[in-house]
Amino acid sequence: MNPTLGVCYYPEHWPEAWWDGDARRMAEVGITFVRIGEFAWSKLEPTPGNLTFDWLIRAMDVLGSHGLKVIFGTPTATPPRWMIDKHPDMLAVDAQGRQKGFGSRRHYDFSHLGYREECARFVKLLADAIGQHPALAGWQTDNEYGCHGTTYSYSPAATAGFRGWLENKYHTVDALNEAWGNVFWSMEYNTFEQIGLPNLMVTEAAPAHSMDFRRYSSDQVVAFNGLQVDILKAARPDLPVIHNFMGRFSEFDHYDVGQKLDIASWDAYPLGHLYQGPESDEMKAQFLRQGDPDYQGLHHDLYRAVGHGRWWVMEQQPGPVNWAHHNPDPLPGMARLWAWEAFAHGAEVVSYFRWRQAPFAQEQMHAGLLRPDSEPAPAYAEAVQVAQELKSTGIGGTTAKGRVAIVYDYQSEWAWQIQPQSQGFTHYAHVKAIYAAFRKRGIDIDILPPSTKSFAGYDIVAIPALFAWNDDLRATIAEFDGHLLIGPRSGSKTQNFAIPATLAPDLPANMLDLKVSRVDSTDPRHGVLVKDGGAVHLWRERVDTRAEVVMEDEENFPVLLSQGKLFYLAASGDRALMQRVVDYLIAEANTPILALPAGVRCRVRDGFRVYFNYSATAATLTKAADETGYVVGDAEIPAAGVTVASLAKV
Amino acid sequence: MNPTLGVCYYPEHWPEAWWDGDARRMAEVGITFVRIGEFAWSKLEPTPGNLTFDWLIRAMDVLGSHGLKVIFGTPTATPPRWMIDKHPDMLAVDAQGRQKGFGSRRHYDFSHLGYREECARFVKLLADAIGQHPALAGWQTDNEYGCHGTTYSYSPAATAGFRGWLENKYHTVDALNEAWGNVFWSMEYNTFEQIGLPNLMVTEAAPAHSMDFRRYSSDQVVAFNGLQVDILKAARPDLPVIHNFMGRFSEFDHYDVGQKLDIASWDAYPLGHLYQGPESDEMKAQFLRQGDPDYQGLHHDLYRAVGHGRWWVMEQQPGPVNWAHHNPDPLPGMARLWAWEAFAHGAEVVSYFRWRQAPFAQEQMHAGLLRPDSEPAPAYAEAVQVAQELKSTGIGGTTAKGRVAIVYDYQSEWAWQIQPQSQGFTHYAHVKAIYAAFRKRGIDIDILPPSTKSFAGYDIVAIPALFAWNDDLRATIAEFDGHLLIGPRSGSKTQNFAIPATLAPDLPANMLDLKVSRVDSTDPRHGVLVKDGGAVHLWRERVDTRAEVVMEDEENFPVLLSQGKLFYLAASGDRALMQRVVDYLIAEANTPILALPAGVRCRVRDGFRVYFNYSATAATLTKAADETGYVVGDAEIPAAGVTVASLAKV
Amino acid sequence: MNPTLGVCYYPEHWPEAWWDGDARRMAEVGITFVRIGEFAWSKLEPTPGNLTFDWLIRAMDVLGSHGLKVIFGTPTATPPRWMIDKHPDMLAVDAQGRQKGFGSRRHYDFSHLGYREECARFVKLLADAIGQHPALAGWQTDNEYGCHGTTYSYSPAATAGFRGWLENKYHTVDALNEAWGNVFWSMEYNTFEQIGLPNLMVTEAAPAHSMDFRRYSSDQVVAFNGLQVDILKAARPDLPVIHNFMGRFSEFDHYDVGQKLDIASWDAYPLGHLYQGPESDEMKAQFLRQGDPDYQGLHHDLYRAVGHGRWWVMEQQPGPVNWAHHNPDPLPGMARLWAWEAFAHGAEVVSYFRWRQAPFAQEQMHAGLLRPDSEPAPAYAEAVQVAQELKSTGIGGTTAKGRVAIVYDYQSEWAWQIQPQSQGFTHYAHVKAIYAAFRKRGIDIDILPPSTKSFAGYDIVAIPALFAWNDDLRATIAEFDGHLLIGPRSGSKTQNFAIPATLAPDLPANMLDLKVSRVDSTDPRHGVLVKDGGAVHLWRERVDTRAEVVMEDEENFPVLLSQGKLFYLAASGDRALMQRVVDYLIAEANTPILALPAGVRCRVRDGFRVYFNYSATAATLTKAADETGYVVGDAEIPAAGVTVASLAKV
Repeated sequence: MNPTLGVCYYPEHWPEAWWDGDARRMAEVGITFVRIGEFAWSKLEPTPGNLTFDWLIRAMDVLGSHGLKVIFGTPTATPPRWMIDKHPDMLAVDAQGRQKGFGSRRHYDFSHLGYREECARFVKLLADAIGQHPALAGWQTDNEYGCHGTTYSYSPAATAGFRGWLENKYHTVDALNEAWGNVFWSMEYNTFEQIGLPNLMVTEAAPAHSMDFRRYSSDQVVAFNGLQVDILKAARPDLPVIHNFMGRFSEFDHYDVGQKLDIASWDAYPLGHLYQGPESDEMKAQFLRQGDPDYQGLHHDLYRAVGHGRWWVMEQQPGPVNWAHHNPDPLPGMARLWAWEAFAHGAEVVSYFRWRQAPFAQEQMHAGLLRPDSEPAPAYAEAVQVAQELKSTGIGGTTAKGRVAIVYDYQSEWAWQIQPQSQGFTHYAHVKAIYAAFRKRGIDIDILPPSTKSFAGYDIVAIPALFAWNDDLRATIAEFDGHLLIGPRSGSKTQNFAIPATLAPDLPANMLDLKVSRVDSTDPRHGVLVKDGGAVHLWRERVDTRAEVVMEDEENFPVLLSQGKLFYLAASGDRALMQRVVDYLIAEANTPILALPAGVRCRVRDGFRVYFNYSATAATLTKAADETGYVVGDAEIPAAGVTVASLAKV
Repeated sequence: MNPTLGVCYYPEHWPEAWWDGDARRMAEVGITFVRIGEFAWSKLEPTPGNLTFDWLIRAMDVLGSHGLKVIFGTPTATPPRWMIDKHPDMLAVDAQGRQKGFGSRRHYDFSHLGYREECARFVKLLADAIGQHPALAGWQTDNEYGCHGTTYSYSPAATAGFRGWLENKYHTVDALNEAWGNVFWSMEYNTFEQIGLPNLMVTEAAPAHSMDFRRYSSDQVVAFNGLQVDILKAARPDLPVIHNFMGRFSEFDHYDVGQKLDIASWDAYPLGHLYQGPESDEMKAQFLRQGDPDYQGLHHDLYRAVGHGRWWVMEQQPGPVNWAHHNPDPLPGMARLWAWEAFAHGAEVVSYFRWRQAPFAQEQMHAGLLRPDSEPAPAYAEAVQVAQELKSTGIGGTTAKGRVAIVYDYQSEWAWQIQPQSQGFTHYAHVKAIYAAFRKRGIDIDILPPSTKSFAGYDIVAIPALFAWNDDLRATIAEFDGHLLIGPRSGSKTQNFAIPATLAPDLPANMLDLKVSRVDSTDPRHGVLVKDGGAVHLWRERVDTRAEVVMEDEENFPVLLSQGKLFYLAASGDRALMQRVVDYLIAEANTPILALPAGVRCRVRDGFRVYFNYSATAATLTKAADETGYVVGDAEIPAAGVTVASLAKV
Repeated sequence: MNPTLGVCYYPEHWPEAWWDGDARRMAEVGITFVRIGEFAWSKLEPTPGNLTFDWLIRAMDVLGSHGLKVIFGTPTATPPRWMIDKHPDMLAVDAQGRQKGFGSRRHYDFSHLGYREECARFVKLLADAIGQHPALAGWQTDNEYGCHGTTYSYSPAATAGFRGWLENKYHTVDALNEAWGNVFWSMEYNTFEQIGLPNLMVTEAAPAHSMDFRRYSSDQVVAFNGLQVDILKAARPDLPVIHNFMGRFSEFDHYDVGQKLDIASWDAYPLGHLYQGPESDEMKAQFLRQGDPDYQGLHHDLYRAVGHGRWWVMEQQPGPVNWAHHNPDPLPGMARLWAWEAFAHGAEVVSYFRWRQAPFAQEQMHAGLLRPDSEPAPAYAEAVQVAQELKSTGIGGTTAKGRVAIVYDYQSEWAWQIQPQSQGFTHYAHVKAIYAAFRKRGIDIDILPPSTKSFAGYDIVAIPALFAWNDDLRATIAEFDGHLLIGPRSGSKTQNFAIPATLAPDLPANMLDLKVSRVDSTDPRHGVLVKDGGAVHLWRERVDTRAEVVMEDEENFPVLLSQGKLFYLAASGDRALMQRVVDYLIAEANTPILALPAGVRCRVRDGFRVYFNYSATAATLTKAADETGYVVGDAEIPAAGVTVASLAKV
């Protein structure tokens, strides 16, 4: 399938008389897919058992009549108010012990089995009612799992579920006491029934306790999703099931949820994500109206991994949004750039959120392709242009395999949130820093899960800040004959969240003869300069090693070490140091690079290299050796501009 | 009545033997009114039904014997501890779900009908006991409604009250679902009994839900106050009923409460208000010991509107207070300046809080006219001077009507707190910025409610950041033939908190042919310069318009537009831009201005122009054309000084 | 006993087979004392009544076999999980009303009498089981009373206890109403049963209410500790009972707890304490890897007072810790320096925490003398060196009596937390500032409790920011014939937290003819310069006085006043002003000083003067007149270095 556009639409929000005109204009834009339904439960079952699917079928009829294909989102993220009367304890409880109420969305507890049954019941009814509709092209499960901090609940249902999960995992309470190190502060349990959740304690819980609660909670999301997938696939084995994930979100293991999905998707809001995120004020000022130039790419590559190669942008920001502290208007052209970037990274569909700005309720300040008065908003014309360019280039196929891969691991995110040791130390920041440094050199990158069985074909693989090795990953790195960058902090724990007996990085001496003997963690204002450029901050390891020192800091502590093709990074670096480390690896691996202007990034797909200019000023591209010409734009790429080069056949 | 001084006194805090001496010294200062009683319930009814009013009558006798007039404050802000035993659920519940306990003050829930009955019972008893006392000159209801965040309660009583209020407003739950846009996230209700309060949700409530809860809560304050007013007026129709409001406080609609009051008053604490407020650090440093030069004036003018022309300062800061993070000593002279400023703005009475500093309990660090050892504190002599100057000038009458008016609207405050869209965007800030810019030009200003039926007589009226038009205000502006400044964000919502069908500012094209098509909101650090001076920050509207562009920013977006005498401001401006906009309007309207030194402000009353120097250095006044001479001070006005000029009869 | 080393050890954390090797190596280091047991309850009583002391006795046998002496810590800070089943209400409730759960440590409420009985029962069993063990050398009660904010509980148990305590103190509720000033806001109680705890109020509680709750809570810690001491002393009257207090901790009165202890000790973590503390960013950057140069000394001197002259460091930081936001590696040498500093200040024992870094549970990132893989960590060799130097110098005896004393008072800490009046005003900061200023002059200082009966022998005594006089202290200062520095804010309250009738500082005119008539409190950015150097910030008093003005600020307000040898400081000063004030006092009192390089401090013990260099660079000492030579190090003192000079016999 060639890449195409989609849009999110809520027929229940508008008079039925408007549906036909809306569908006609969607088709005119060049839209193929329309996602509907994911918040419509109260309109489909206004009182218990009273099903009113007729309007929905009429809406799908109208959309289908204009050749549009429907992705139907199960509305389980917004159970109707009467559901709370049936299951008063289905509401989640936050870490402060407060039950969260009805009145917005995601008001359910993943651990509540009664609500899961209600979802199964309703999804089955839906599959029966619309599963054979000719316009139906796929399903979305729920909406943005975990949004608004809803992965973790501290409810009685979660407590009961957690105890059962622990018993299933450890079998005996003695085994649990041993695994968690409960001897430490007389925290030993006599029975599983005594175990509580790791909130509202006097001081921190044992890290293994917190880690197991995160694993348990992640598993509940997996189970909640799997239940729906099973029902939907039973009804229509031929239709894909998708979920729309979020950006910079790590509360549950997305790879695990992805196991049961046909396609992964995510909701891309570049401006809000930059504004609310951890980047520097300087970067925020520079990319205020464009978004972080590497944030979208990293997520595209991540969700490609989550979806086993198949992925969409289910919601694409089309203008100002409503949920950040400040909500700038994107630079003209960004709604086109973002779509092209996603396609270059392999997206099958980019679906704008939403068709028409809703004048009422919580998201009334969130732009759409149409204004509330149905006039086109600026992104309308940009979507039209993207649709035409997709057609004119004929781009299809898939994105190119990267020359470089980076392992991103959800458990590592949890681990360093549980035990930062140096405030601000995160797995994400390390992955992002390495990603950005490679991408500035024009290199295509893949993100890989820690369960990857082979690194074959990559020049370089990076495994930064990895919580703990698993057996597969140990075998994978042992067999890999490319260049490997590991650390800092990688392999510093066992799966039970303890320091390994042979200390971090917990690798055999024939791979890396190095032990981390101590950690020096200081605040980011007190960095240490590295000889020849860059600085160490937040994290610096003291090592006992026979590995070769490649870089060292001005206090003569090793920063980058090597043993054969394995490189160990013993510190957190600033941007300059990370670029130096990455450039060193690139040179060692002899990986080809491009000379990109500042703010410009690129990705190769199906014989095309797509350039996107994230900067607020125009730039001039240097023609690369493998490029035969420009099929969209040219070497002069304006602010927020896109240029597509065609590549010589290999 | 000529303006005069008052003081707040607590006979129950002191030995009875001191009362006569205190009253004698009050009279010597030149004080006329003494407010008493508002925290004395436990001394008047120490156990349920056991009334001990004898001491109170003796205290009033003593005060009356020195010619002092008593304002009696109903003590309903401090129910005694036994009341909680009778009504355990009368304690309010905060937004986090925590019931607030006894032990300080304002420990009651406006929605609790049982407590309302107790208040009615006790106020009736009071009216019976002291209503005919010859010293009695008026009543104060309760004390500082809403202080300490007590307007909103999330209690069962509030929930029940809110449901009834909604049913009364909407009649059917379908109408409510439609008005709130509940279709948006399946938030539709089947019955009114399912509706909860907009707290402890997973994410934000529908804005119309939050807005209605604020309207409901405001109405409870109105009802609570009205109940007491009815009883007090029944007992003594001839005596005024007053309430003492606070500064920068908008949780309930003060105009609505003011409907039943004879006189509005407020409690003016310039230093604490500046220190705890949103002004810049630079302004805080400059006016540390004086207060914001426009804050008091704005509130004086606001409460003159709330009181339909009649207003007092019920509590005037006399020295350092106890409740700000830091509590500076005012510059010598400020206790006099603040009083004179209030009189110039039309105050009938300025009443210092308090007579003698209490050496015990919560406010022991709050200065009085006397020190705790009964020696005069510095404000004592300043009060004496004010009393003499009032007499010597013979100032009376009322304050002059302003040439300029600004609409201040409580619902607009709520709206932008509920939906800031750009963090820091407030109605108050826009009103304040315009107020200060006009006042620096020596122009007298009136504050008007959104229910104003006519703007006749004003050169210029400003309506900034107005939530939604009401029918009256639409008619008022349509009839106005002066210069009108509207926006930004004015008319951007319907009364149901939705975007109007014809978009903001929701005005007929013959008045203003302009639609706000989009909003660009950025943080205050990322402003955009305006051509010829000033900058836009926080808020910038994209407009479709045929109006004339008067000012535009450096990216060529319109900032100020005009259509006839209607001016539309499409952005939030910094101080420089707001001054430019105001100066432009002044020039267009040909409104006369004065050349005031920095930090000096003035107001005209009864043929006198009173100048107050808020700066910490002396200044020289330029004699205005209409001034015949100085009756207090002269052209050289010292720091914290006051000069009173007499004006030629018109 | 000559000073010696100790270590904290947890035999229950390690295989029994390791115990003998561990003990042997401890002895090799030169360690004498081993603290064990304080978290081992679940291993000693795994289910109710099922005692398993056998392993403990074997562990003590092994330690004893290597000549090591055991300090046994009662494990009452970590009751096992089954205890919560027996006493579900023994868990404390925080100020927000949330019960804190099991899963970490210190999960008990000091007010819970049932848990106290359980502790008494178990301590008695322990005393029976190991009280006669030949290796036993002393006891530690519990662990770090109050750590993690556990002094205050807002539980039903605390409420009941508080009411009884109040009735015992005041006898009648009228007396309590009078003492607290409850007339102020109708806060009067009819019965003790109506009184609640001072949390979750609408606004602040009466300060006397808060103060009495703090006194009550402190008394519960005293009672909890006393119960254990009585049992342990009954079993072994000859063995010392110790408690390990914390740094910068003032929630309960340590002097009161110390009444029943034989020896005070504290847990010294210089880097975490600096990082988490209130010092300036500049100081934090300068001493990141060394700690605040005066913090440890101040606490050593404080705990010498708490222990009536006998004190230990029970836990000494040996490397990076795990609990600060960032956890730097100490400079090489600091583990030695800190130990020497403690000995110089009179420590009998310095005990490193802990022997081996635990690879599991909450403190896995906390360094020990051994790494988790049992290899020596850097502090191992430093401990060996300290042990050898103690032996080679033969240092013994006790620390010298100071020439200067400063009164430190826990109630004053509570008072200014309850009523800062100027945010950031604390008793500790005033004590610390004066302490540091004297210590930079090489002067030995003692910390004294407010109950001190005589100041005889001191050149200078300072009493800064004292809440209220007690009768003893009034008598003590009246009899003192040295130089006395009082204020600011000293004597500004009565014991009932009211302003004294004669105003602060509440001293007879023949001692000090001065009244504080008003307080000017501004934020620290708005200081006022003092003539000739330094600045006033946060706090400035207006005084009525006949005392002589020694220093005044640039607005001509007095800063330092004198009447005979009594000096009154009427302001909070910056570092420069505090040094000027202290230098002025030193000159007046003719107290000898030393010329110390920046970052170097010293203390005299047993004929030796020990110098410690806290700076990150080397320094050169000037030989003092009374020094006969160097027995450890020499005049060139490296970064983190120690030099010991021998003194001429007096």
